[in-house]
Amino acid sequence: MNVAVDAMGGDCSTETIVQGAIQAASEFDIDVTLVGDGHVLTDALASQPCRDRMSFRHCSEVVDMDESPLKAVRKKKDSSINVAFGLLKSGVSNAVVSAGNSGATLAAAVLALGRLNGVDRPGIASFFPGEDGPVLLIDVGANVDCRPRQLFQFGIMAQAFICSCLEIEDPKIGLLSIGEEDKKGNEQVLSTRHLFEQSPLNFVGNVEGRDIFSGNIQIIVCDGFVGNVALKLSEGMAQTMIKMLDRELRDSYRGKIARFLGDRKIKQFIKTFEYEEYGGAPLLGVNGVGIVCHGRSSERAIKNAIILASQYASKGTLKKMASQLTESNEQVENI
Amino acid sequence: MNVAVDAMGGDCSTETIVQGAIQAASEFDIDVTLVGDGHVLTDALASQPCRDRMSFRHCSEVVDMDESPLKAVRKKKDSSINVAFGLLKSGVSNAVVSAGNSGATLAAAVLALGRLNGVDRPGIASFFPGEDGPVLLIDVGANVDCRPRQLFQFGIMAQAFICSCLEIEDPKIGLLSIGEEDKKGNEQVLSTRHLFEQSPLNFVGNVEGRDIFSGNIQIIVCDGFVGNVALKLSEGMAQTMIKMLDRELRDSYRGKIARFLGDRKIKQFIKTFEYEEYGGAPLLGVNGVGIVCHGRSSERAIKNAIILASQYASKGTLKKMASQLTESNEQVENI
Repeated sequence: MNVAVDAMGGDCSTETIVQGAIQAASEFDIDVTLVGDGHVLTDALASQPCRDRMSFRHCSEVVDMDESPLKAVRKKKDSSINVAFGLLKSGVSNAVVSAGNSGATLAAAVLALGRLNGVDRPGIASFFPGEDGPVLLIDVGANVDCRPRQLFQFGIMAQAFICSCLEIEDPKIGLLSIGEEDKKGNEQVLSTRHLFEQSPLNFVGNVEGRDIFSGNIQIIVCDGFVGNVALKLSEGMAQTMIKMLDRELRDSYRGKIARFLGDRKIKQFIKTFEYEEYGGAPLLGVNGVGIVCHGRSSERAIKNAIILASQYASKGTLKKMASQLTESNEQVENI
Repeated sequence: MNVAVDAMGGDCSTETIVQGAIQAASEFDIDVTLVGDGHVLTDALASQPCRDRMSFRHCSEVVDMDESPLKAVRKKKDSSINVAFGLLKSGVSNAVVSAGNSGATLAAAVLALGRLNGVDRPGIASFFPGEDGPVLLIDVGANVDCRPRQLFQFGIMAQAFICSCLEIEDPKIGLLSIGEEDKKGNEQVLSTRHLFEQSPLNFVGNVEGRDIFSGNIQIIVCDGFVGNVALKLSEGMAQTMIKMLDRELRDSYRGKIARFLGDRKIKQFIKTFEYEEYGGAPLLGVNGVGIVCHGRSSERAIKNAIILASQYASKGTLKKMASQLTESNEQVENI
């Protein structure tokens, strides 16, 4: 198992990415190929353990976070993200991890590997910290305007991913809307619901924003506009709540003692709401394995993303996804 | 100042609504007319203080939370929500507060009072707990599919409301999208942005989900689908985070002591994220003052909603809103 890691993308330092990769390679049966500036990577790897598991591939360019994805990927042929997916295409690597521009990561993946058979448009899925375990929300930003058929395909792909990769049997799938009743939703949701209802998926109907955290559900489908707002809202809200709790406790003597005594437990609680626990966001619908990490990833986030990428690549998930897509598309056409 | 309060709508008890109303009437210069079952209200008010400030109006029907709004409001002529807006129309009351079916509240308001001059479709705005003070998000569920002109009008109305009613000068307005850059967003956002840019409003451009909590902004505009998901997600997330923090702290001896010592401060922190602090959600675009409360409102939430309704009705906000709408609509037509 070899995972190609984009060592230049993102707002985190190359050092952070290298350290996360070394942790993954030391603790698990994974080889890592770092893709980035050869001089920097030679230095970074020089004094590191597990050098036999680590290698690098030099490249001369990087796609910046604010660049237009498709344009940048087409122009910068020797960018780290393009070279990483090149390694996957040529069979050197089995998966790609990047903390860079997520749009560019998806674009590079599609250009290099193409779409999975039967997929109209690939999506990006992301884990949310539900009370009953992680919840996978798809799409979180790749497709801002979606047709019902695309949303339905997101559901199929997420189901295959969760079943095969995380070994959860028959996950519950909900469609994000503004009320649980059949008739609640916008035009897009009303048409999509119909497709899910006719499918053999474990579809539980419409779910609401609050069900992302407490709905005893494993997959929630929405378009990339709504999903991106939900993702960023929940990240921002978690940070704000943690900051405000800290501010409140610091504000009094009793509070300060409480903060000191509860420190380990409060940190445990904060961890639940940090993206880095969930190992990044899988690209679903690309004909290959790619994981997008948060732009400001920590070493831990990079490590967890590499582990997730390795699981995604090793369990035949893509094959299962493709066969389920073929079946479901036939079914949709028959409806 | 008389506020008509729907005493039958919502999942909270009539007792809760009556107590909230009594608190508002006792502490502020507000008369309250409760609308509901006369027998129940006679009993509830019998032994209460400030009876001179409290009155009731009997009605025989109620719109349930899961009824189809427009249909129910048209059919149930003598429902509490219709009778409450009837009091406003006839000049007995100056504002209406309801914790009932929010769609029915909006429908009853529009049927009784009509739309404000220049408004295509009224919206429901809701407060979010931002780090730098409350943020008003509009729309949170009244209009699931919106045209750019409607979103623009939401911005105008929210600005007039915030300026006049909360006395905040020149509030910053953002358009909810998936990135701050001009080109980020779905088709709806891209067209709406153009309208805001040409206006004299203090428009700061696109904002992201995270800016709802930490964006130093006072108004955020989005369609009712996205806004409803955001509202319910943040409510659900706050509840989940509070529950998880409590669970973590209870889990160890040190944690339990921390929980005991920090109790007052933790409660203070929790309060920030409870909807009841913000006094309900104003209907904007109706030719009269209406406030929708959470279906499971507490006494405190009802009290705060009545106070907000009284402020909204007493400061000439509707007139200012109407004149700004006329100006802005002319401007939009000239673009």
